[in-house]
Amino acid sequence: MDIRTRLHQHFTQLVPLTDDEFEYIWSHFSLKKFKKRQTLIQEGDAVKFHYWVHKGLIKSSHTDESGKEHILQFAMEDWWVSDYLALYNHTPATLTVDCIEDSEVLVLSDDDHQKLAREIHAFSNFFLLKKKGGYVGLQQRILLLLFKNPRERYERLQQLQPKLMQRVPKTLLAAYLGVSRESLSRLYQGEM
Amino acid sequence: MDIRTRLHQHFTQLVPLTDDEFEYIWSHFSLKKFKKRQTLIQEGDAVKFHYWVHKGLIKSSHTDESGKEHILQFAMEDWWVSDYLALYNHTPATLTVDCIEDSEVLVLSDDDHQKLAREIHAFSNFFLLKKKGGYVGLQQRILLLLFKNPRERYERLQQLQPKLMQRVPKTLLAAYLGVSRESLSRLYQGEM
Repeated sequence: MDIRTRLHQHFTQLVPLTDDEFEYIWSHFSLKKFKKRQTLIQEGDAVKFHYWVHKGLIKSSHTDESGKEHILQFAMEDWWVSDYLALYNHTPATLTVDCIEDSEVLVLSDDDHQKLAREIHAFSNFFLLKKKGGYVGLQQRILLLLFKNPRERYERLQQLQPKLMQRVPKTLLAAYLGVSRESLSRLYQGEM
Repeated sequence: MDIRTRLHQHFTQLVPLTDDEFEYIWSHFSLKKFKKRQTLIQEGDAVKFHYWVHKGLIKSSHTDESGKEHILQFAMEDWWVSDYLALYNHTPATLTVDCIEDSEVLVLSDDDHQKLAREIHAFSNFFLLKKKGGYVGLQQRILLLLFKNPRERYERLQQLQPKLMQRVPKTLLAAYLGVSRESLSRLYQGEM
């Protein structure tokens, strides 16, 4: 399926769109290709764009002063990713967004995103539904982090995102779950 | 300022609304008053409503199997609160939402919320902007929890929400920050 058709389906799964509306929305996107380890957003950058993953696997993360990487989010096919704090507040990026696999993404500027939300009611409704889902995902993540039990975090991720767990290297999974690489290995071996 | 005027301002700070549109939106809300410690949502309940805080202070939390309370969110004047996971997914509540102070809230059913989002473009835009802010707030919270340093979490909350920190009892602040009551006391005394 070509990328235009996939984006069309992505929208119309949630909201109705006329062909003219989709054509207009589509005209604001551009395609970018990135190699594994290439960076979409670097900490400290100005952030202007929303990214929709057509192919590949991307992560957003923050590296603390000791050099340790904390992963906020993974994004694979059909997921949206950016540093939303920086994007919405016009502040420098506090996250790095980079590619775990070779990736193809559709890029939409936040200026155009805001314009389209004002102009097209269904576009606004679509992202309201998306943000609701994203909000709930983060809510669940916070509760898991507060529980502080590596086993529960691990099992919950396995239950919610089995495909993701197969694709993401274990070192990165550990940085996402907030557990050590050694603890994660023990979880895989069923020892904890 | 009366509650209707405050809700009107709350919307029109972010989006333009005609008087007719606001009148129509307003007609879907109802006022409820709760005493300190009263419960809006109990874990296990079906969840039907969004709550907007007119007066008071509310928390949403989850109690784990050992009986320990983990606080997801506080909500004071002008904040929205619910168990969004349960509300959006029509699953039983995994959170308890109850009052830290006597509270007055405006109540809107999620059915009406969805209807208004479909009918009124500005309503949809308003909650898209709100959800963006909420999403970013949760994103910051996750990064703080991943850092796992009680001092940084404490200082960050003090910086972002100084008023909240004055109103919330310290035992509850500790349950929000994911630190022990004793660690929090040492932070207040500047010992950590």
